[in-house]
Amino acid sequence: MIPRYTRPDMAAIWSDASKYRIWFEIEAHAADRVAELGVIPKEAAQKIWEKARDAEFDVARIDEIEREVKHDVIAFLTHLAEIVGDEARFVHQGMTSSDVLDTCLSVQLTRAADLLLDGMDRVLAALKTRALEHKNTVCVGRSHGIHAEPTTFGLKLAGFYAEFERGKRRLETAREEVAVCAISGAVGTFANIDPSVEAHVADKMGLKIEPVSTQVIPRDRHAAYFSALAVISSSVERIATEIRHLQRTEVLEAEEYFSKGQKGSSAMPHKRNPILTENLTGLARLVRMCAAPALENVALWHERDISHSSVERGIGPDATVHLDFALHRLAGVIEKLVVYPERMQENMDRLGGLIFSQRVLLALTQAGASREEAYSLVQRNAMPAWRGEGAFLDNLKGDQEVTVKLSANELEHLFDLNYHTKNVDVIFSRVFG
Amino acid sequence: MIPRYTRPDMAAIWSDASKYRIWFEIEAHAADRVAELGVIPKEAAQKIWEKARDAEFDVARIDEIEREVKHDVIAFLTHLAEIVGDEARFVHQGMTSSDVLDTCLSVQLTRAADLLLDGMDRVLAALKTRALEHKNTVCVGRSHGIHAEPTTFGLKLAGFYAEFERGKRRLETAREEVAVCAISGAVGTFANIDPSVEAHVADKMGLKIEPVSTQVIPRDRHAAYFSALAVISSSVERIATEIRHLQRTEVLEAEEYFSKGQKGSSAMPHKRNPILTENLTGLARLVRMCAAPALENVALWHERDISHSSVERGIGPDATVHLDFALHRLAGVIEKLVVYPERMQENMDRLGGLIFSQRVLLALTQAGASREEAYSLVQRNAMPAWRGEGAFLDNLKGDQEVTVKLSANELEHLFDLNYHTKNVDVIFSRVFG
Amino acid sequence: MIPRYTRPDMAAIWSDASKYRIWFEIEAHAADRVAELGVIPKEAAQKIWEKARDAEFDVARIDEIEREVKHDVIAFLTHLAEIVGDEARFVHQGMTSSDVLDTCLSVQLTRAADLLLDGMDRVLAALKTRALEHKNTVCVGRSHGIHAEPTTFGLKLAGFYAEFERGKRRLETAREEVAVCAISGAVGTFANIDPSVEAHVADKMGLKIEPVSTQVIPRDRHAAYFSALAVISSSVERIATEIRHLQRTEVLEAEEYFSKGQKGSSAMPHKRNPILTENLTGLARLVRMCAAPALENVALWHERDISHSSVERGIGPDATVHLDFALHRLAGVIEKLVVYPERMQENMDRLGGLIFSQRVLLALTQAGASREEAYSLVQRNAMPAWRGEGAFLDNLKGDQEVTVKLSANELEHLFDLNYHTKNVDVIFSRVFG
Amino acid sequence: MIPRYTRPDMAAIWSDASKYRIWFEIEAHAADRVAELGVIPKEAAQKIWEKARDAEFDVARIDEIEREVKHDVIAFLTHLAEIVGDEARFVHQGMTSSDVLDTCLSVQLTRAADLLLDGMDRVLAALKTRALEHKNTVCVGRSHGIHAEPTTFGLKLAGFYAEFERGKRRLETAREEVAVCAISGAVGTFANIDPSVEAHVADKMGLKIEPVSTQVIPRDRHAAYFSALAVISSSVERIATEIRHLQRTEVLEAEEYFSKGQKGSSAMPHKRNPILTENLTGLARLVRMCAAPALENVALWHERDISHSSVERGIGPDATVHLDFALHRLAGVIEKLVVYPERMQENMDRLGGLIFSQRVLLALTQAGASREEAYSLVQRNAMPAWRGEGAFLDNLKGDQEVTVKLSANELEHLFDLNYHTKNVDVIFSRVFG
Repeated sequence: MIPRYTRPDMAAIWSDASKYRIWFEIEAHAADRVAELGVIPKEAAQKIWEKARDAEFDVARIDEIEREVKHDVIAFLTHLAEIVGDEARFVHQGMTSSDVLDTCLSVQLTRAADLLLDGMDRVLAALKTRALEHKNTVCVGRSHGIHAEPTTFGLKLAGFYAEFERGKRRLETAREEVAVCAISGAVGTFANIDPSVEAHVADKMGLKIEPVSTQVIPRDRHAAYFSALAVISSSVERIATEIRHLQRTEVLEAEEYFSKGQKGSSAMPHKRNPILTENLTGLARLVRMCAAPALENVALWHERDISHSSVERGIGPDATVHLDFALHRLAGVIEKLVVYPERMQENMDRLGGLIFSQRVLLALTQAGASREEAYSLVQRNAMPAWRGEGAFLDNLKGDQEVTVKLSANELEHLFDLNYHTKNVDVIFSRVFG
Repeated sequence: MIPRYTRPDMAAIWSDASKYRIWFEIEAHAADRVAELGVIPKEAAQKIWEKARDAEFDVARIDEIEREVKHDVIAFLTHLAEIVGDEARFVHQGMTSSDVLDTCLSVQLTRAADLLLDGMDRVLAALKTRALEHKNTVCVGRSHGIHAEPTTFGLKLAGFYAEFERGKRRLETAREEVAVCAISGAVGTFANIDPSVEAHVADKMGLKIEPVSTQVIPRDRHAAYFSALAVISSSVERIATEIRHLQRTEVLEAEEYFSKGQKGSSAMPHKRNPILTENLTGLARLVRMCAAPALENVALWHERDISHSSVERGIGPDATVHLDFALHRLAGVIEKLVVYPERMQENMDRLGGLIFSQRVLLALTQAGASREEAYSLVQRNAMPAWRGEGAFLDNLKGDQEVTVKLSANELEHLFDLNYHTKNVDVIFSRVFG
Repeated sequence: MIPRYTRPDMAAIWSDASKYRIWFEIEAHAADRVAELGVIPKEAAQKIWEKARDAEFDVARIDEIEREVKHDVIAFLTHLAEIVGDEARFVHQGMTSSDVLDTCLSVQLTRAADLLLDGMDRVLAALKTRALEHKNTVCVGRSHGIHAEPTTFGLKLAGFYAEFERGKRRLETAREEVAVCAISGAVGTFANIDPSVEAHVADKMGLKIEPVSTQVIPRDRHAAYFSALAVISSSVERIATEIRHLQRTEVLEAEEYFSKGQKGSSAMPHKRNPILTENLTGLARLVRMCAAPALENVALWHERDISHSSVERGIGPDATVHLDFALHRLAGVIEKLVVYPERMQENMDRLGGLIFSQRVLLALTQAGASREEAYSLVQRNAMPAWRGEGAFLDNLKGDQEVTVKLSANELEHLFDLNYHTKNVDVIFSRVFG
Repeated sequence: MIPRYTRPDMAAIWSDASKYRIWFEIEAHAADRVAELGVIPKEAAQKIWEKARDAEFDVARIDEIEREVKHDVIAFLTHLAEIVGDEARFVHQGMTSSDVLDTCLSVQLTRAADLLLDGMDRVLAALKTRALEHKNTVCVGRSHGIHAEPTTFGLKLAGFYAEFERGKRRLETAREEVAVCAISGAVGTFANIDPSVEAHVADKMGLKIEPVSTQVIPRDRHAAYFSALAVISSSVERIATEIRHLQRTEVLEAEEYFSKGQKGSSAMPHKRNPILTENLTGLARLVRMCAAPALENVALWHERDISHSSVERGIGPDATVHLDFALHRLAGVIEKLVVYPERMQENMDRLGGLIFSQRVLLALTQAGASREEAYSLVQRNAMPAWRGEGAFLDNLKGDQEVTVKLSANELEHLFDLNYHTKNVDVIFSRVFG
């Protein structure tokens, strides 16, 4: 994870301190249940909590032990024994490292998802506020980068809102899929541990049980999780791309907030660059790339191999941290986005009414022209206007084959913005209820 | 799509004939509603159905027109006019090409999902049958490719079953997400078409309405769809990898069915290769690669650009056709898989009881050894057995530091397979109810 | 491969007819050398050529045999025996299927690379012609989508030219890497075939020998090949993106050629969309996605598994066919690109001289201002101009803190386009010599 | 970059301290040449070196400034002014931030490539040593995971050696491609800086000049670089996969070195897992994933956008650090790999001579059988042996249709290992000269 694209809350989830704390809780909750089953003394389970509940685990010490034993969970348990004392031998009874590691990863990914959902909520709130604000701010809609027909800036934002709501549902589903606990032993058979331990730990850690684990929790769950983040990051990129387009010099319909003292360029003092949304575009690529190795992690050998582990040490923090940062950066951009309605109007007027070409086409067919004929009539009056030769409406009025079907008055009536915005309320009510 | 990995049913969904049929239905249903609104004559809408309901669209003719006009929907509409006659000018009123294209793609992806769900059901049925058959077929569980502890072949299959059930739910969700209709005009504002047309077509085509379209249906829906296929294909690869491992000469616990007359190798007549599952591994890669460009398709420019179109012409058919083929190939492999329980037993015996090492470890700690001490005692008796020097049980019996804690009798008692299978029923009931 | 994005020459390389022709040549050349070594009769080798040199292989018949024997090379050899007669038993002596399949793939990929190099040459020629034509066509350079400083349209094209030259070298390298022949038997040991057969076939087929094959040619070669295509396709996307930007309504500095009779939109007759370059953007994604599975193909199991095969049946044709199409489409776009120098000038003037801000900054520092001070002086006169409040030059002239350092005359002198184009010749000579 | 997969030498290249040091050198060398051109005073250029040559840049201070000005290069220059004093205003004359940033990245990637080449050399040396050691260590070759024909362990390693030599050439090419310097100003026109500055800095920093930059160095160079790393990482995965296979319990032909005190499993003290090569498999995925966003970085907008920057902050360090670690881990694994020749022999004997089936097939055809007939004769004697019913040689001897063509004596003669290893020298001389 790249420090400048890291928020402390998300980083904390992935710290060694958090990890060892979660490991401890899993072990201690398991010990509680193992003790209840009579396998280990109840006093031992109590002692474990007493001694270590508020202990700080010494990360450097654990690292030191790991360098010797070359096994992270054993290193942790050895250190735990240094804290708990003799009763530590009752910890981890019948468990295997993956019981701890995988359940911990589930907890981390679940907590990360909760933070990401907060970020999405902030994006959604910003989108809604600005969408309502600009519900009727008319601007040109563009397909292929070319002026098409009028729309409103609020409609753009409403579409993004709907997309982020879908993203939120995807993330909720992914969170639920990954929120599972496995305490099932070396090959998932519960040979040395009772299934009720798994149920107890799951309950305490806010997870559900994994129905069939094989030492590890199956990696299709994680692949689905990272795929969900990849889709969401692509939605982030979509909004970022829109804003970058709107801010380009020739368009300038909206602009990222530019603070006092900010410098756009070391060499060109006049510049105000959409660097936040460009950055979001790059962050989206960073998040998205994490889906591929997560998918390759699914086909582990037999009951498990450990190839997924190094991958997850990378993509676990990276994808969640960078998406978390991106969501809040995006929310900030939207919240403070500077919108220029006059410029929107100016741009819309640029093609001299060509944006009404479809309406003229339809009117001509309704006035009896064949579709082909109408198309040809409109196109021959539009293309000169495109080249700057006469305004579209004037050209039409001067074309006798047009005017036998539509009078000058009827033609003028077709050039009407309200015609294009009449259903904005319908769409808003679909999105915002 | 690669002919040898194509089933006709899925190919049919993507044929030009299907596509034009769906386009026609969308246009004709839309015309019905447009007529009801009084925009076009009702007789025209009727005539469209009458003339074209059972017509065969001439693909070559449409191609010919497209070469001239360079626009596929206009080419289709021109051909439709050749069939319907003058009333054709009432078709497509207020609509834009994407209304037809995108809604058609939704229909195709939805139908493809239905076929894929059938394939998944076949895989699930095969997995269930074989899982129940081999519920108690004991074999060694392996982590890191190394013998770990006993499990059963049925448990392996039960795990795959649970994974495919998750895959099925993911696909159902993805299907629902992509089953949307947009008939909203050039920039999604319903300027030239009433929203009720969209609702009518959606209803007739088995879709829901897209709340906010922008000429196109937002591509996060499609990205989520292809991502779901990618995860499922990775699950296919997981099972394929397991079978490839089980069939390798030194393991040979299971084998793909090898038919009479089949030749494993042109040069080595003795060979029986797991070519179907190797092929599935490759097909999984082909399906998986389609997620990346689907994600890149999300950030279209403004109200739409058309970069997604060529991508979808490729990945739409490719990903669904190859996954469809893979699912049925996989189902066939599982249905006819030849399983060798005796060989499973032989392999399990190979390490001379080392697979019981954890149980010995636990017994030693319960008999008072510290975890560290117990680990060391077990390891020093296990490693010679690993090298073929003495059986593990014999080594333990000969180690005084062990026998002061556990008698020979107690030790023998620990080497018991039933201990490992006692919870198989619990797990099966989690999966199969 | 998608028919509409397929050129016949490239498709021919991947046809069954081509494949069987190459297979035959490999087998027949091998038989020549095997006969010279005295292992089979020389007359047999001659007969093979005589009977089959001009034969047409019956693809349907081979398919029929394959359905029975489930092995493509055996099916081909069986059909070859139907043509050649009894001597056919001397074909394939000591060879294994992969000797034929892998060497054939090398031939196909090599031929495909040659066609792609032709396509790149056409792109290069077009870029050079247009670069020289527009060497001095001044336009604004943009960073972050924001006006920066003047450049020339020819410089943009010269940069693309240099990038495509690099791409060409990469493809030549990739071609050379994949142009290898392996005729080394079941595990690459030449147990049943003399290494001289490999050398002979390599020579005849225009390849080099693979130093160590393992039944198959190692797949790092193919991974490098598809990675090279991926990089080139990204360069295609870069040019396409530039043109899409230049064509957008507000910019319109250049435009794809729009032919008579072409329709930009079924609904909006005024539209002229950059659909070719949008299409190239999508095709780039399709080519690029093929690198990932090619990379996954590298780690085959032991001396080989066949998972790579289905992947290559897909990506072999797809990546080469789509890139081939893209290169020619791109060349056509560049050759016929409509350029609007007046519009370039208009756009450049839009910010009222802000594009000279750096030069003013430098002049101020040389006149004794600190960097910080100069930056601040420029920025405070630039930002109002950005908002449309006064022209930048006028603002500067009215700022006393500026004019104490630079006179009005000196200031005017700084607003000079020639200053920015003085090194165009230097750059052109770097690229075009 | 993940601390546990990071070697200090590579990490140092990417430290802030290194970065600022390189920035300084670029600026100071540029100032030298700018001074020679008479644009700034020579004394100023000297003073810059004098004051800052041995200065330590205060990373925290630079961060603090950046938080205010939101621009990293300006923050650095501001801090440099704190060190150098008034002459600092002559630094960065006519340059733009990207001149510094991009040239710095070139230096870092070039240095990283040099370290990676060292790592590859270590892998190559290890492979060569072990290949020569095991040149004649016979083992079974496997295709599809199934025994095929004999090979030698040295041949496996020789193949890997050849692959890594190819990888090394690819990396050398990629290094050369990325080793370029751009000091060309805001849009690459050298408006405010003489091209000779670029040439001077390039020379001093060990780079070549970028012929056409556009503020930035074109990103196809970087895409090619990361693609080369992706291919190499896949080659790492190939060797890792081979070793994982060889170590699996049923095969155990080779094993990662297992040190004293090492613990294979927290729960199963008997385990010796191939964790290093499993880890390499995962690291390969982490490196490989970095190619995709590097490819997406190529199509920057116009003369540049900054979306690539965040991507490169991630993948620059991550891909090089993780591959560097992987190469040294791999070298260590190979250097200390424990090889079990007896077990190789045992495994080879397991199929009762079936590995000689091709030789029998060839002998039968040479004795007059048709290919089809010979295949059938061999297969019907092989399949029972596969099932454990009789040894293959015995079955053949008992088959009259075989023995009319080949006597028992002739048959026995065919079961000869030396036949398979006779060309090992030929292959070794191809690889090692």
